[in-house]
Amino acid sequence: MPLRQLTAARRFAPGIDLGPIGPVVGVALFVLSLAMMPPLLVDLWSGTPDWGVFALASLVTGFAGGSLVLMRGLRPIVRLETRQAFLLTTLVWLVTTAFASLPFLFSGLNLTLADAFFEAMSGITTTGSTVITGLDEAPPGILLWRSLLQWLGGVGIIVMGVAVLPFLNVGGMQLFRTESSERTEKALPRAAQIAWATVVVYFGLTAACALAYGLAGMPVFEALTHAMTTLATGGYATSDASIAGFGSPGIEWIAILFMTLGGVPLMRIVQALRGRPRLLWRDVQVRWYLSIILCVALLLFAWVHLTGQATGHTGVRHALFSTVAVVTGTGYASVDYNGWGTFPVVVFFFLTCVGGCTGSTTGGIKVFRFVILYEVSQVQALRLIRPNGVFRPAYNGRPISDAAAISVLAFVFLFALVFAVVTALLAAMGLEFLTAMSAAITALANVGPGLGEIVGPAGNFASIPDGAKWILAFAMLLGRLELFTVLILFTPAFWRG
Amino acid sequence: MPLRQLTAARRFAPGIDLGPIGPVVGVALFVLSLAMMPPLLVDLWSGTPDWGVFALASLVTGFAGGSLVLMRGLRPIVRLETRQAFLLTTLVWLVTTAFASLPFLFSGLNLTLADAFFEAMSGITTTGSTVITGLDEAPPGILLWRSLLQWLGGVGIIVMGVAVLPFLNVGGMQLFRTESSERTEKALPRAAQIAWATVVVYFGLTAACALAYGLAGMPVFEALTHAMTTLATGGYATSDASIAGFGSPGIEWIAILFMTLGGVPLMRIVQALRGRPRLLWRDVQVRWYLSIILCVALLLFAWVHLTGQATGHTGVRHALFSTVAVVTGTGYASVDYNGWGTFPVVVFFFLTCVGGCTGSTTGGIKVFRFVILYEVSQVQALRLIRPNGVFRPAYNGRPISDAAAISVLAFVFLFALVFAVVTALLAAMGLEFLTAMSAAITALANVGPGLGEIVGPAGNFASIPDGAKWILAFAMLLGRLELFTVLILFTPAFWRG
Repeated sequence: MPLRQLTAARRFAPGIDLGPIGPVVGVALFVLSLAMMPPLLVDLWSGTPDWGVFALASLVTGFAGGSLVLMRGLRPIVRLETRQAFLLTTLVWLVTTAFASLPFLFSGLNLTLADAFFEAMSGITTTGSTVITGLDEAPPGILLWRSLLQWLGGVGIIVMGVAVLPFLNVGGMQLFRTESSERTEKALPRAAQIAWATVVVYFGLTAACALAYGLAGMPVFEALTHAMTTLATGGYATSDASIAGFGSPGIEWIAILFMTLGGVPLMRIVQALRGRPRLLWRDVQVRWYLSIILCVALLLFAWVHLTGQATGHTGVRHALFSTVAVVTGTGYASVDYNGWGTFPVVVFFFLTCVGGCTGSTTGGIKVFRFVILYEVSQVQALRLIRPNGVFRPAYNGRPISDAAAISVLAFVFLFALVFAVVTALLAAMGLEFLTAMSAAITALANVGPGLGEIVGPAGNFASIPDGAKWILAFAMLLGRLELFTVLILFTPAFWRG
Repeated sequence: MPLRQLTAARRFAPGIDLGPIGPVVGVALFVLSLAMMPPLLVDLWSGTPDWGVFALASLVTGFAGGSLVLMRGLRPIVRLETRQAFLLTTLVWLVTTAFASLPFLFSGLNLTLADAFFEAMSGITTTGSTVITGLDEAPPGILLWRSLLQWLGGVGIIVMGVAVLPFLNVGGMQLFRTESSERTEKALPRAAQIAWATVVVYFGLTAACALAYGLAGMPVFEALTHAMTTLATGGYATSDASIAGFGSPGIEWIAILFMTLGGVPLMRIVQALRGRPRLLWRDVQVRWYLSIILCVALLLFAWVHLTGQATGHTGVRHALFSTVAVVTGTGYASVDYNGWGTFPVVVFFFLTCVGGCTGSTTGGIKVFRFVILYEVSQVQALRLIRPNGVFRPAYNGRPISDAAAISVLAFVFLFALVFAVVTALLAAMGLEFLTAMSAAITALANVGPGLGEIVGPAGNFASIPDGAKWILAFAMLLGRLELFTVLILFTPAFWRG
């Protein structure tokens, strides 16, 4: 980096060497420009003129990425300082999203800048809210691009969850440092190994899911795109009717299975495939995750059964499908559960915050934090009853340090605070109470559909004001990066030398 | 206590000596039966036949109280075990409420058992939600009884906040142990002294408020009853139109002043009157409390001004009045703010949780917990930026221990959890989304009016199902006793020997 640029960077952020950030963002953009090839080819192959959109977008993205890499050259990055890591993480996601929105912007779908950015952010964060109406008439390239974005976003979050966040201590993530990483110098290679194994399994599961969808009767293109958004727990579909449009119970059961798998820590699946399935069942967050799904689905089934809205097989399937779709943040709809009454709406509202397991592609507060909240509250109660007793909360058999407990609790508080601020901003822009509340929570928890007519599973985010779309896109990023990673950049302390 | 009874009690709760609990509850009931005298006299004096209602209720309550005292005799209680203290606290409030509901039940207002209990609980917890319509035609005795209940509930919570809760470590209340109490053996007498001084000041402020209301044009009866419910931040009025019915800006300004005072820690006012006003301004929770009121009122004023709904003096007054009424949990209405649009509704929804200062009669999460959440999050961010630095959050200049921080955070989590469960239960009983949400939060935070047409400031809780009234009454008790005090009784560990 020439001296003048370096000085400018130093003045902007004293003490933070911005040097390694450019090339990493550049590589990400380069990968993104390559990812634009499949949609380009699909459009070419199907004779859609939209292939030019991807050619242009790919060129721009590739050029930007190449420039960033060349500015400094691809020297290996030995060690990142903490603040560099925070800045890098946020920037990679933000810049990638900006370039990922180009195909939407260039396409003939008449999207504003806010629309395109919203759609890209919703894709990359595996949220799945959409502003595009008329999916059924959209060019196949765009449909594939939406699915690819979610799938790549899923890869991104898995790698981050294994290799980056645990080392940044964000929101209690320090609990997920692998044992070896705490003791030896080989932390990074070991993390890279694990990250690689999980990505391979992620790929394998996607292929299995596509195969299952295909066998159940989905056309090849639909099977592939849906498999990608199922495993990414993203939820983009290729039709306005979402997965309900296929009218196939078999397809819905397959979706239930693979969405559920998408919410499990992928590393546990890796371990299970390597002959240690016990680790999967012994993981307390997996047990809680599956229990939550079963309990909520049972509750919903009881409701739709007792109110006579759906019975027997159909009732069980819809209850289970909707529960899994919301908990994992996939957001597929097998039925418009808004019509089920207020009780399911309230249940889905709170369920939206929960999320799946850490180490998966799901968002939200995440199950492990609820486990810790429960353990801490339990110990809190015991301490009240016997002030002189000694009690320690534990997670997966290991004691939870006070620092980790406070991390988790501060995360939950911040989640509530950001939710309140986003809701208030949306309301100030004219959204109704239920719409504002549920749009805020569904964005923050990366779920996708909200509640009510406008943003509900049968609705669409297209009609809300552009300002609200920017706010929601930012909320998605906040949620995806576990809040602290982004919010910390807004503290003066971060930028002080 | 005869041996047989003792054995029965032991079998019921091994290890907990229930002996001292009966007499304390008895004394509370005795005081309650005496408190029924003023309404009795008012009804007699105004020639209302309802005086018989209070005579009967007072007789029953006094008899029950007397029996409980005589069962064991009034031996001084030397020391309460922790579990005894929890059980005692909850039982005193619960049994007192049951007997306090007798006048409502016996009266000619056609209230069901659920109605009567709801109204009494809403009074005693200083919540202020009502199921009585036609307050303007109600006998004066009942109106006075409602005000008296809130005023006495206010006394109860002040005494508890000074003398009981800090020693039970509930939800971070250990931060409010007076310095001397931590060091010397004279903890109880000192706490009793402080409690007494605050009660005297509470009485004095009520008198001052009544005088001010009277000078501003309220009739004597209205001035007295409103002064009681203003200082108790309860909000029961003597007319369906609430305080707006007087149509007097002067009265509304007086209410703003005394509601605000009602949310300040009364001990600080005691100290200020004793010549140490600085302690009031130096208290971080007082500074936050006043800042929150000013910021929110300003925001609301900007909203009603920009949307042309109220301008100038009137706008300022309504914005300030509504903010203070909600933050302190008084729940008076100078205007129906439901008509202001979604933004104010969302702001009021979140404001409902906030509450005033500890050591006052307000409910909710309370300002000091937000201060601690802020400090902890701040330190959390600093630790992320500089993992090797040493940072400690502080409250009022003293470091916050990890245990206290976790107490506070666990409280907030439990608050959110109980809110979710209550909302879901209300929705299952048929309440709409906004109604269920706001009824749950207004009960839990002891505020009073909710949002929307049914439970909003212009509405009434009369039309909701009886089951929902029981649930809300329980939520009020939970909120009033800082959750843990009641919930702990539902843990198996509490009852184990």
